[in-house]
Amino acid sequence: MRVAVIGVGLIGGSVALAARERLGATVSGYDARPQALEAAITRRAIDHAAGTVAEAVQDAEVAFVAAPVAALPGLVGDVLAAAPADCAVSDVGSTKRAIAAAHDDPRFIGGHPLAGAETAGVEHARADLFDGATWYLTPRPTSSGVLYERLHRLLYGIGARPTAIDPETHDRMLAAVSHLPHVLANVLAGQAAATLREDGARGMGGAAFGPSLRDATRVAGAPSAIWTDIYLFNADALVSELDGTIARLREARDTLATGDREAITAWNEAAASDRRALLASARGDANLVELRASVPNRPGVLATLALELGRNGVNIADMALHPASDRTEGVVALWIAGDEAASRAEALVLGLGFPVARP
Amino acid sequence: MRVAVIGVGLIGGSVALAARERLGATVSGYDARPQALEAAITRRAIDHAAGTVAEAVQDAEVAFVAAPVAALPGLVGDVLAAAPADCAVSDVGSTKRAIAAAHDDPRFIGGHPLAGAETAGVEHARADLFDGATWYLTPRPTSSGVLYERLHRLLYGIGARPTAIDPETHDRMLAAVSHLPHVLANVLAGQAAATLREDGARGMGGAAFGPSLRDATRVAGAPSAIWTDIYLFNADALVSELDGTIARLREARDTLATGDREAITAWNEAAASDRRALLASARGDANLVELRASVPNRPGVLATLALELGRNGVNIADMALHPASDRTEGVVALWIAGDEAASRAEALVLGLGFPVARP
Repeated sequence: MRVAVIGVGLIGGSVALAARERLGATVSGYDARPQALEAAITRRAIDHAAGTVAEAVQDAEVAFVAAPVAALPGLVGDVLAAAPADCAVSDVGSTKRAIAAAHDDPRFIGGHPLAGAETAGVEHARADLFDGATWYLTPRPTSSGVLYERLHRLLYGIGARPTAIDPETHDRMLAAVSHLPHVLANVLAGQAAATLREDGARGMGGAAFGPSLRDATRVAGAPSAIWTDIYLFNADALVSELDGTIARLREARDTLATGDREAITAWNEAAASDRRALLASARGDANLVELRASVPNRPGVLATLALELGRNGVNIADMALHPASDRTEGVVALWIAGDEAASRAEALVLGLGFPVARP
Repeated sequence: MRVAVIGVGLIGGSVALAARERLGATVSGYDARPQALEAAITRRAIDHAAGTVAEAVQDAEVAFVAAPVAALPGLVGDVLAAAPADCAVSDVGSTKRAIAAAHDDPRFIGGHPLAGAETAGVEHARADLFDGATWYLTPRPTSSGVLYERLHRLLYGIGARPTAIDPETHDRMLAAVSHLPHVLANVLAGQAAATLREDGARGMGGAAFGPSLRDATRVAGAPSAIWTDIYLFNADALVSELDGTIARLREARDTLATGDREAITAWNEAAASDRRALLASARGDANLVELRASVPNRPGVLATLALELGRNGVNIADMALHPASDRTEGVVALWIAGDEAASRAEALVLGLGFPVARP
């Protein structure tokens, strides 16, 4: 497998390392910063340092673009212009509507791994960075099924859990589960620092705090080179989450101000229940169950199928596409985690009009 | 050393374990829940399970009351009524104004360890729970210097960093660095869960999130048996922090809504700087420098000294009191972390009118 990685920082470098170490891939890398490219060679993350984007992708089977969100539309365009006709092209940006709207090439399938670290740079890249991490993919009706399968399997092979989602749902969900926590961390850091500073002569020298503030401010002031773009590109969804949050915070403030023991307890217990629901939603996988669906061999079928399952909370752990010899139809094998989810997947696939069986 | 622990849950049990294992103390325990007392014996956290508060403290040199905040004034009163005349009595409550106002007995010195865990109960108690943790003490002008020193040394001996603070500053600071993060975690859990639930048929089955939401909601819905009291007893300080936070959140929302790249970056960089300031304020200790101050042997001197240093951000790592033979005055040895802090401590002690030297 020949993989190209455009942008060899923490994420791009980790994709490269994992593809080499786990899949035996040959990786060609490009980065606008020569020192990053050099570090990627030193780190053995890439086999070949390309001088241009076109050189990096010229014979790639899969190309990843790992760059700040604002740079993606242009870079992905450059990659699509230079990449072979059967190369899957993806990105790792944290917002997905803008990039999806910018490119409807059948080779392009947007992506976003839910992984990262407090560090940056290929020096901190790790082959296991994506182990067990959800990796969102945003196939469109125009996306190639063959390339979707190739991309999905590569991601599964480097330890991730690829999950299809539409760009709009992705951006709304990420506003709630990632961008909002970052804004709250920023605001909390500001408020706590201001209160400690106000304590006159004491200054902040004697301040101390337990794990709650440390955990809650861990992502405060995350790198602006990445986050300003995320805030800009998902502003509408994020502002909507912030409006909801401000309303909830006002309610909490009013409840606390009443001194009403029962109301305060009820409010706190509701939060406990919300947290349990969040944790349950992100729980790990059970046993894999294989399903085989017969599907017509036409564009958009695999994307439709993956999105239908993703939309209904069924995660495809692994998949394999077996075209029939006349190429008019094929069998797609799906591995679903857990018996209950597999049964739901069967019903959903049937609902799309495709025969399905457990082999 | 004979130690009494009233309330053998996670905190009380850990104090007991650490005092036994590290200081060779004999620990007598009492708990209103017989099964907790039994578990403390099984866990070897206490030597003796007392049938009443009075029995537990009857010959104690130091007594700790570890109970929910609302129960503290009554329990500390029971302990003071039964404890010997030279027994230091402390508590571990997360708010300090109410308990300080309730008792002005010279034997009582309020306390609050900044330690805890996601678990509860003596089964999860650990002798190392307080290693390196700030343990606030709130001596009053009426507090006994001898008992303050005894308590300070015991806490230092079990790994904590005792730090004197007045109850008002304590409650204001804790509102910012602990109670506010808990409220924000609750609100964030509610907001994120609501957004994920709104995603129609998808439900929450397919939700996934990275470490930022997990970190930021870790303390959401913390046990109401503890936290309802904290919210009630520190409501005024917390509401003031919430008002500041709501104002900051509104500003952030408006900045993000403008789509102004420079303003968003400036806001994010300010948060990065606030976080650095917070982390710097909580940094670990340097080498210990010993100072010896000559002080008159009268009530309140040690409390005044500890508070003056605490107020100015100087932490007393360890201390030892050496009364002169005629007991009219004495020498207090102070170990201060870091040369710069030790110099400030010298100046502050001199400012209080006490001669001080480095031996």
